[in-house]
Amino acid sequence: MATGQTTPTRGYTATKDQLQTRLRRIEGQVRGVERMVEDDRYCIDVLTQISAIRAALDKVALGLLDGHVRHCVQEGAEAGKADEMATELMAAVGRLMGRG
Amino acid sequence: MATGQTTPTRGYTATKDQLQTRLRRIEGQVRGVERMVEDDRYCIDVLTQISAIRAALDKVALGLLDGHVRHCVQEGAEAGKADEMATELMAAVGRLMGRG
Amino acid sequence: MATGQTTPTRGYTATKDQLQTRLRRIEGQVRGVERMVEDDRYCIDVLTQISAIRAALDKVALGLLDGHVRHCVQEGAEAGKADEMATELMAAVGRLMGRG
Amino acid sequence: MATGQTTPTRGYTATKDQLQTRLRRIEGQVRGVERMVEDDRYCIDVLTQISAIRAALDKVALGLLDGHVRHCVQEGAEAGKADEMATELMAAVGRLMGRG
Repeated sequence: MATGQTTPTRGYTATKDQLQTRLRRIEGQVRGVERMVEDDRYCIDVLTQISAIRAALDKVALGLLDGHVRHCVQEGAEAGKADEMATELMAAVGRLMGRG
Repeated sequence: MATGQTTPTRGYTATKDQLQTRLRRIEGQVRGVERMVEDDRYCIDVLTQISAIRAALDKVALGLLDGHVRHCVQEGAEAGKADEMATELMAAVGRLMGRG
Repeated sequence: MATGQTTPTRGYTATKDQLQTRLRRIEGQVRGVERMVEDDRYCIDVLTQISAIRAALDKVALGLLDGHVRHCVQEGAEAGKADEMATELMAAVGRLMGRG
Repeated sequence: MATGQTTPTRGYTATKDQLQTRLRRIEGQVRGVERMVEDDRYCIDVLTQISAIRAALDKVALGLLDGHVRHCVQEGAEAGKADEMATELMAAVGRLMGRG
Protein backbone atom coordinates (compact mmCIF):
# COMPACT_ATOMS: atom_id res chain seq x y z
CA MET A 1 0.00 0.00 0.00
CA ALA A 2 2.89 2.36 -0.70
CA THR A 3 2.13 5.90 -1.82
CA GLY A 4 4.06 8.23 -4.07
CA GLN A 5 5.68 5.44 -6.06
CA THR A 6 7.29 6.32 -9.33
CA THR A 7 7.47 2.72 -10.52
CA PRO A 8 4.72 1.65 -12.92
CA THR A 9 1.67 -0.21 -11.53
CA ARG A 10 1.83 -3.88 -12.49
CA GLY A 11 -0.70 -6.62 -12.03
CA TYR A 12 -2.92 -6.05 -9.00
CA THR A 13 -0.54 -3.64 -7.27
CA ALA A 14 -2.47 -0.67 -5.91
CA THR A 15 -1.43 2.38 -3.90
CA LYS A 16 -3.26 3.39 -0.74
CA ASP A 17 -4.82 6.29 -2.69
CA GLN A 18 -6.09 3.94 -5.40
CA LEU A 19 -7.59 1.58 -2.80
CA GLN A 20 -9.36 4.46 -1.05
CA THR A 21 -10.72 5.83 -4.31
CA ARG A 22 -12.05 2.39 -5.23
CA LEU A 23 -13.61 1.88 -1.80
CA ARG A 24 -15.37 5.25 -1.91
CA ARG A 25 -16.72 4.32 -5.35
CA ILE A 26 -17.93 0.95 -3.97
CA GLU A 27 -19.64 2.76 -1.07
CA GLY A 28 -21.46 4.90 -3.65
CA GLN A 29 -22.43 1.81 -5.64
CA VAL A 30 -23.91 0.18 -2.51
CA ARG A 31 -25.92 3.35 -1.84
CA GLY A 32 -27.09 3.18 -5.47
CA VAL A 33 -28.34 -0.38 -4.90
CA GLU A 34 -30.17 0.76 -1.73
CA ARG A 35 -31.99 3.39 -3.84
CA MET A 36 -32.77 0.81 -6.56
CA VAL A 37 -34.38 -1.51 -3.97
CA GLU A 38 -36.22 1.47 -2.41
CA ASP A 39 -37.59 2.40 -5.86
CA ASP A 40 -38.58 -1.23 -6.62
CA ARG A 41 -36.31 -1.29 -9.66
CA TYR A 42 -36.26 -4.44 -11.75
CA CYS A 43 -34.52 -7.28 -9.86
CA ILE A 44 -32.23 -8.19 -12.75
CA ASP A 45 -30.91 -4.62 -12.98
CA VAL A 46 -30.20 -4.60 -9.23
CA LEU A 47 -28.39 -7.95 -9.55
CA THR A 48 -26.25 -6.57 -12.38
CA GLN A 49 -25.17 -3.75 -10.07
CA ILE A 50 -24.40 -6.21 -7.26
CA SER A 51 -22.22 -8.26 -9.64
CA ALA A 52 -20.34 -5.05 -10.49
CA ILE A 53 -19.80 -4.30 -6.78
CA ARG A 54 -18.49 -7.83 -6.19
CA ALA A 55 -16.02 -7.46 -9.07
CA ALA A 56 -14.88 -4.10 -7.68
CA LEU A 57 -14.46 -5.58 -4.16
CA ASP A 58 -12.44 -8.47 -5.59
CA LYS A 59 -10.16 -5.94 -7.29
CA VAL A 60 -9.60 -4.17 -3.96
CA ALA A 61 -8.97 -7.55 -2.27
CA LEU A 62 -6.41 -8.53 -4.92
CA GLY A 63 -4.73 -5.14 -4.58
CA LEU A 64 -4.43 -5.56 -0.80
CA LEU A 65 -3.23 -9.14 -1.14
CA ASP A 66 -0.63 -8.06 -3.67
CA GLY A 67 0.73 -5.44 -1.28
CA HIS A 68 0.68 -7.98 1.53
CA VAL A 69 2.65 -10.54 -0.47
CA ARG A 70 5.18 -7.97 -1.71
CA HIS A 71 5.80 -6.29 1.63
CA CYS A 72 4.50 -8.04 4.76
CA VAL A 73 5.19 -11.63 3.66
CA GLN A 74 8.64 -10.62 2.47
CA GLU A 75 9.47 -8.83 5.72
CA GLY A 76 7.93 -11.65 7.76
CA ALA A 77 10.15 -14.17 5.98
CA GLU A 78 13.23 -12.08 6.75
CA ALA A 79 12.11 -12.01 10.41
CA GLY A 80 11.88 -15.82 10.49
CA LYS A 81 8.09 -15.87 10.39
CA ALA A 82 7.70 -17.29 6.87
CA ASP A 83 5.62 -20.26 7.98
CA GLU A 84 3.28 -18.24 10.15
CA MET A 85 2.80 -15.72 7.30
CA ALA A 86 2.04 -18.51 4.84
CA THR A 87 -0.65 -20.01 7.08
CA GLU A 88 -2.25 -16.59 7.53
CA LEU A 89 -2.05 -15.79 3.81
CA MET A 90 -3.62 -19.10 2.82
CA ALA A 91 -6.49 -18.62 5.28
CA ALA A 92 -7.18 -15.21 3.71
CA VAL A 93 -7.12 -16.64 0.17
CA GLY A 94 -9.41 -19.49 1.27
CA ARG A 95 -11.92 -16.99 2.69
CA LEU A 96 -11.80 -14.93 -0.53
CA MET A 97 -12.56 -18.09 -2.51
CA GLY A 98 -15.54 -18.71 -0.21
CA ARG A 99 -13.85 -21.78 1.28
CA GLY A 100 -13.07 -20.22 4.64
CA MET B 1 -39.54 -8.27 -2.66
CA ALA B 2 -42.99 -8.43 -1.05
CA THR B 3 -43.54 -6.65 2.27
CA GLY B 4 -45.92 -7.49 5.07
CA GLN B 5 -45.94 -11.21 4.28
CA THR B 6 -47.48 -13.48 6.85
CA THR B 7 -45.93 -16.63 5.35
CA PRO B 8 -42.73 -17.81 7.02
CA THR B 9 -39.38 -16.86 5.45
CA ARG B 10 -37.79 -19.89 3.83
CA GLY B 11 -34.46 -20.35 2.12
CA TYR B 12 -33.17 -17.11 0.62
CA THR B 13 -36.53 -15.31 0.57
CA ALA B 14 -36.16 -11.74 1.87
CA THR B 15 -38.60 -8.88 2.25
CA LYS B 16 -37.83 -5.42 0.92
CA ASP B 17 -37.21 -4.27 4.50
CA GLN B 18 -34.72 -7.07 5.11
CA LEU B 19 -32.87 -6.28 1.88
CA GLN B 20 -32.65 -2.59 2.79
CA THR B 21 -31.43 -3.35 6.30
CA ARG B 22 -28.74 -5.66 4.90
CA LEU B 23 -27.66 -3.10 2.30
CA ARG B 24 -27.34 -0.33 4.90
CA ARG B 25 -25.21 -2.69 6.99
CA ILE B 26 -23.04 -3.46 3.93
CA GLU B 27 -22.63 0.29 3.29
CA GLY B 28 -21.40 0.63 6.89
CA GLN B 29 -19.01 -2.28 6.43
CA VAL B 30 -17.53 -0.67 3.30
CA ARG B 31 -17.03 2.58 5.23
CA GLY B 32 -15.34 0.50 7.94
CA VAL B 33 -12.91 -0.91 5.37
CA GLU B 34 -12.18 2.64 4.09
CA ARG B 35 -11.21 3.61 7.65
CA MET B 36 -9.09 0.46 8.05
CA VAL B 37 -7.14 1.32 4.88
CA GLU B 38 -6.86 4.97 6.01
CA ASP B 39 -5.44 3.80 9.37
CA ASP B 40 -3.01 1.35 7.67
CA ARG B 41 -4.57 -1.57 9.50
CA TYR B 42 -3.05 -5.01 8.92
CA CYS B 43 -3.86 -6.24 5.36
CA ILE B 44 -5.14 -9.62 6.52
CA ASP B 45 -7.69 -7.99 8.85
CA VAL B 46 -8.91 -5.75 6.00
CA LEU B 47 -9.21 -8.82 3.74
CA THR B 48 -11.26 -10.64 6.39
CA GLN B 49 -13.69 -7.70 6.41
CA ILE B 50 -13.88 -7.72 2.59
CA SER B 51 -14.70 -11.45 2.63
CA ALA B 52 -17.52 -10.69 5.09
CA ILE B 53 -18.88 -7.96 2.79
CA ARG B 54 -18.79 -10.34 -0.18
CA ALA B 55 -20.74 -12.96 1.79
CA ALA B 56 -23.30 -10.32 2.82
CA LEU B 57 -23.65 -9.10 -0.79
CA ASP B 58 -24.14 -12.67 -1.99
CA LYS B 59 -26.92 -13.08 0.56
CA VAL B 60 -28.63 -9.94 -0.79
CA ALA B 61 -28.18 -11.21 -4.36
CA LEU B 62 -29.69 -14.61 -3.48
CA GLY B 63 -32.60 -12.85 -1.74
CA LEU B 64 -33.28 -10.72 -4.81
CA LEU B 65 -32.95 -13.71 -7.14
CA ASP B 66 -35.34 -15.70 -4.98
CA GLY B 67 -37.97 -12.96 -5.19
CA HIS B 68 -37.38 -12.69 -8.93
CA VAL B 69 -37.86 -16.42 -9.49
CA ARG B 70 -40.97 -16.58 -7.27
CA HIS B 71 -42.71 -13.52 -8.68
CA CYS B 72 -41.34 -12.06 -11.93
CA VAL B 73 -40.40 -15.35 -13.64
CA GLN B 74 -43.74 -16.84 -12.63
CA GLU B 75 -45.70 -13.83 -13.95
CA GLY B 76 -43.53 -13.69 -17.05
CA ALA B 77 -44.29 -17.36 -17.76
CA GLU B 78 -48.02 -16.69 -17.46
CA ALA B 79 -47.62 -13.79 -19.89
CA GLY B 80 -45.94 -16.08 -22.45
CA LYS B 81 -42.45 -14.73 -21.84
CA ALA B 82 -41.00 -17.83 -20.12
CA ASP B 83 -38.13 -18.19 -22.57
CA GLU B 84 -37.12 -14.54 -22.46
CA MET B 85 -37.21 -14.62 -18.64
CA ALA B 86 -35.07 -17.78 -18.55
CA THR B 87 -32.39 -16.20 -20.78
CA GLU B 88 -32.34 -13.08 -18.59
CA LEU B 89 -32.23 -15.12 -15.37
CA MET B 90 -29.38 -17.30 -16.59
CA ALA B 91 -27.34 -14.25 -17.63
CA ALA B 92 -27.78 -12.85 -14.10
CA VAL B 93 -26.73 -16.15 -12.46
CA GLY B 94 -23.71 -16.36 -14.80
CA ARG B 95 -22.63 -12.84 -13.80
CA LEU B 96 -23.03 -13.69 -10.09
CA MET B 97 -20.81 -16.75 -10.63
CA GLY B 98 -18.22 -14.47 -12.25
CA ARG B 99 -18.81 -16.09 -15.66
CA GLY B 100 -20.60 -13.12 -17.20
CA MET C 1 -31.06 -31.26 -22.06
CA ALA C 2 -32.92 -31.75 -25.33
CA THR C 3 -31.14 -33.45 -28.23
CA GLY C 4 -31.62 -33.01 -31.95
CA GLN C 5 -32.81 -29.42 -31.67
CA THR C 6 -32.85 -27.37 -34.83
CA THR C 7 -33.21 -24.09 -32.95
CA PRO C 8 -30.01 -22.09 -32.48
CA THR C 9 -28.10 -22.41 -29.21
CA ARG C 10 -28.58 -19.26 -27.13
CA GLY C 11 -26.96 -18.18 -23.90
CA TYR C 12 -26.02 -21.13 -21.73
CA THR C 13 -28.41 -23.59 -23.42
CA ALA C 14 -26.66 -26.91 -24.07
CA THR C 15 -27.84 -30.18 -25.54
CA LYS C 16 -27.23 -33.49 -23.78
CA ASP C 17 -24.53 -34.25 -26.39
CA GLN C 18 -22.77 -30.97 -25.71
CA LEU C 19 -22.85 -31.55 -21.94
CA GLN C 20 -21.40 -35.06 -22.35
CA THR C 21 -18.65 -33.84 -24.67
CA ARG C 22 -17.72 -31.12 -22.19
CA LEU C 23 -17.73 -33.55 -19.25
CA ARG C 24 -15.47 -36.01 -21.10
CA ARG C 25 -13.09 -33.15 -21.83
CA ILE C 26 -13.16 -32.14 -18.13
CA GLU C 27 -12.39 -35.75 -17.14
CA GLY C 28 -9.37 -35.64 -19.45
CA GLN C 29 -8.29 -32.31 -17.95
CA VAL C 30 -8.45 -33.77 -14.42
CA ARG C 31 -6.31 -36.72 -15.56
CA GLY C 32 -3.89 -34.20 -17.04
CA VAL C 33 -3.62 -32.46 -13.65
CA GLU C 34 -2.98 -35.85 -11.97
CA ARG C 35 -0.05 -36.38 -14.36
CA MET C 36 1.24 -32.85 -13.73
CA VAL C 37 1.28 -33.49 -9.96
CA GLU C 38 2.86 -36.91 -10.53
CA ASP C 39 5.60 -35.28 -12.63
CA ASP C 40 6.16 -32.49 -10.04
CA ARG C 41 5.28 -29.85 -12.60
CA TYR C 42 5.49 -26.23 -11.51
CA CYS C 43 2.64 -25.41 -9.05
CA ILE C 44 1.53 -22.29 -10.91
CA ASP C 45 1.08 -24.27 -14.16
CA VAL C 46 -1.02 -26.87 -12.30
CA LEU C 47 -3.13 -24.08 -10.77
CA THR C 48 -3.71 -22.56 -14.21
CA GLN C 49 -5.09 -25.91 -15.37
CA ILE C 50 -7.32 -26.18 -12.28
CA SER C 51 -8.72 -22.70 -12.99
CA ALA C 52 -9.52 -23.88 -16.53
CA ILE C 53 -11.32 -26.96 -15.18
CA ARG C 54 -13.36 -24.79 -12.80
CA ALA C 55 -14.41 -22.53 -15.67
CA ALA C 56 -15.38 -25.57 -17.77
CA LEU C 57 -17.38 -27.05 -14.86
CA ASP C 58 -19.18 -23.74 -14.34
CA LYS C 59 -20.13 -23.75 -18.03
CA VAL C 60 -21.61 -27.25 -17.64
CA ALA C 61 -23.45 -26.15 -14.48
CA LEU C 62 -24.89 -23.09 -16.25
CA GLY C 63 -25.95 -25.30 -19.19
CA LEU C 64 -27.75 -27.71 -16.86
CA LEU C 65 -29.35 -24.87 -14.91
CA ASP C 66 -30.53 -23.28 -18.15
CA GLY C 67 -32.22 -26.52 -19.21
CA HIS C 68 -33.71 -26.87 -15.76
CA VAL C 69 -35.20 -23.37 -15.79
CA ARG C 70 -36.52 -23.73 -19.35
CA HIS C 71 -38.09 -27.16 -18.91
CA CYS C 72 -38.44 -28.48 -15.35
CA VAL C 73 -39.28 -25.19 -13.63
CA GLN C 74 -41.76 -24.37 -16.39
CA GLU C 75 -43.47 -27.77 -16.17
CA GLY C 76 -43.36 -27.66 -12.37
CA ALA C 77 -45.12 -24.29 -12.42
CA GLU C 78 -47.85 -25.68 -14.68
CA ALA C 79 -48.24 -28.59 -12.23
CA GLY C 80 -48.75 -26.17 -9.33
CA LYS C 81 -45.30 -26.74 -7.85
CA ALA C 82 -43.82 -23.31 -8.68
CA ASP C 83 -42.89 -22.52 -5.10
CA GLU C 84 -41.26 -25.86 -4.41
CA MET C 85 -39.27 -25.56 -7.68
CA ALA C 86 -38.14 -22.05 -6.78
CA THR C 87 -36.85 -23.17 -3.36
CA GLU C 88 -34.96 -26.05 -4.97
CA LEU C 89 -33.54 -23.84 -7.73
CA MET C 90 -32.33 -21.21 -5.29
CA ALA C 91 -30.62 -23.83 -3.11
CA ALA C 92 -28.76 -25.08 -6.22
CA VAL C 93 -27.70 -21.54 -7.21
CA GLY C 94 -26.57 -20.86 -3.63
CA ARG C 95 -24.40 -23.99 -3.67
CA LEU C 96 -22.90 -23.01 -7.03
CA MET C 97 -22.01 -19.61 -5.56
CA GLY C 98 -20.31 -21.41 -2.66
CA ARG C 99 -22.96 -20.16 -0.24
CA GLY C 100 -24.71 -23.49 0.24
CA MET D 1 4.16 -30.93 -2.08
CA ALA D 2 6.62 -32.64 0.23
CA THR D 3 6.11 -36.32 1.02
CA GLY D 4 6.97 -38.28 4.11
CA GLN D 5 6.69 -35.28 6.41
CA THR D 6 6.54 -35.94 10.11
CA THR D 7 5.23 -32.47 10.90
CA PRO D 8 1.47 -32.24 11.40
CA THR D 9 -0.68 -31.09 8.47
CA ARG D 10 -1.97 -27.58 9.13
CA GLY D 11 -4.42 -25.46 7.22
CA TYR D 12 -4.40 -26.27 3.50
CA THR D 13 -1.02 -28.02 3.47
CA ALA D 14 -1.23 -31.28 1.48
CA THR D 15 1.35 -33.89 0.56
CA LYS D 16 1.79 -35.07 -3.02
CA ASP D 17 0.04 -38.32 -2.05
CA GLN D 18 -2.95 -36.46 -0.64
CA LEU D 19 -3.22 -34.30 -3.76
CA GLN D 20 -3.12 -37.36 -6.02
CA THR D 21 -5.73 -39.19 -3.94
CA ARG D 22 -8.02 -36.16 -4.11
CA LEU D 23 -7.52 -35.77 -7.86
CA ARG D 24 -8.33 -39.44 -8.52
CA ARG D 25 -11.49 -39.01 -6.44
CA ILE D 26 -12.40 -35.89 -8.46
CA GLU D 27 -11.84 -37.83 -11.70
CA GLY D 28 -14.29 -40.46 -10.41
CA GLN D 29 -16.80 -37.76 -9.47
CA VAL D 30 -16.63 -36.28 -12.99
CA ARG D 31 -17.25 -39.75 -14.45
CA GLY D 32 -20.21 -40.05 -12.07
CA VAL D 33 -21.65 -36.80 -13.44
CA GLU D 34 -21.18 -38.08 -17.02
CA ARG D 35 -23.27 -41.15 -16.09
CA MET D 36 -25.90 -38.97 -14.39
CA VAL D 37 -26.29 -36.88 -17.57
CA GLU D 38 -26.33 -40.05 -19.70
CA ASP D 39 -29.12 -41.46 -17.49
CA ASP D 40 -31.10 -38.18 -17.62
CA ARG D 41 -30.91 -37.85 -13.85
CA TYR D 42 -32.68 -34.88 -12.27
CA CYS D 43 -30.79 -31.66 -13.08
CA ILE D 44 -30.69 -30.45 -9.48
CA ASP D 45 -29.00 -33.69 -8.35
CA VAL D 46 -26.39 -33.32 -11.10
CA LEU D 47 -25.79 -29.69 -10.05
CA THR D 48 -25.30 -30.78 -6.42
CA GLN D 49 -22.58 -33.17 -7.60
CA ILE D 50 -20.94 -30.43 -9.68
CA SER D 51 -20.88 -28.13 -6.64
CA ALA D 52 -19.15 -30.94 -4.70
CA ILE D 53 -16.53 -31.31 -7.47
CA ARG D 54 -15.90 -27.56 -7.45
CA ALA D 55 -15.37 -27.61 -3.68
CA ALA D 56 -12.98 -30.58 -4.01
CA LEU D 57 -11.05 -28.81 -6.81
CA ASP D 58 -10.76 -25.66 -4.71
CA LYS D 59 -9.33 -27.75 -1.88
CA VAL D 60 -6.68 -29.17 -4.26
CA ALA D 61 -5.94 -25.64 -5.52
CA LEU D 62 -5.52 -24.31 -1.98
CA GLY D 63 -3.26 -27.26 -1.13
CA LEU D 64 -1.05 -26.56 -4.16
CA LEU D 65 -1.00 -22.84 -3.45
CA ASP D 66 -0.02 -23.52 0.16
CA GLY D 67 2.94 -25.65 -0.93
CA HIS D 68 3.88 -23.00 -3.48
CA VAL D 69 3.87 -20.21 -0.89
CA ARG D 70 5.78 -22.29 1.68
CA HIS D 71 8.46 -23.60 -0.66
CA CYS D 72 8.74 -21.95 -4.09
CA VAL D 73 7.95 -18.36 -3.03
CA GLN D 74 10.31 -18.71 -0.10
CA GLU D 75 13.14 -20.09 -2.25
CA GLY D 76 12.42 -17.54 -4.95
CA ALA D 77 12.72 -14.73 -2.41
CA GLU D 78 16.09 -16.07 -1.27
CA ALA D 79 17.19 -16.16 -4.91
CA GLY D 80 16.27 -12.48 -5.34
CA LYS D 81 13.13 -13.18 -7.35
CA ALA D 82 10.58 -12.12 -4.69
CA ASP D 83 8.91 -9.59 -6.93
CA GLU D 84 8.60 -11.91 -9.91
CA MET D 85 7.18 -14.65 -7.65
CA ALA D 86 4.64 -12.23 -6.15
CA THR D 87 3.38 -11.18 -9.59
CA GLU D 88 3.02 -14.82 -10.63
CA LEU D 89 1.31 -15.79 -7.36
CA MET D 90 -1.20 -12.94 -7.57
CA ALA D 91 -2.07 -13.84 -11.17
CA ALA D 92 -2.79 -17.42 -10.02
CA VAL D 93 -4.98 -16.22 -7.12
CA GLY D 94 -6.82 -13.86 -9.46
CA ARG D 95 -7.56 -16.71 -11.86
CA LEU D 96 -8.79 -18.90 -8.97
CA MET D 97 -11.14 -16.09 -7.94
CA GLY D 98 -12.45 -15.96 -11.50
CA ARG D 99 -10.89 -12.52 -12.05
CA GLY D 100 -8.13 -13.68 -14.39
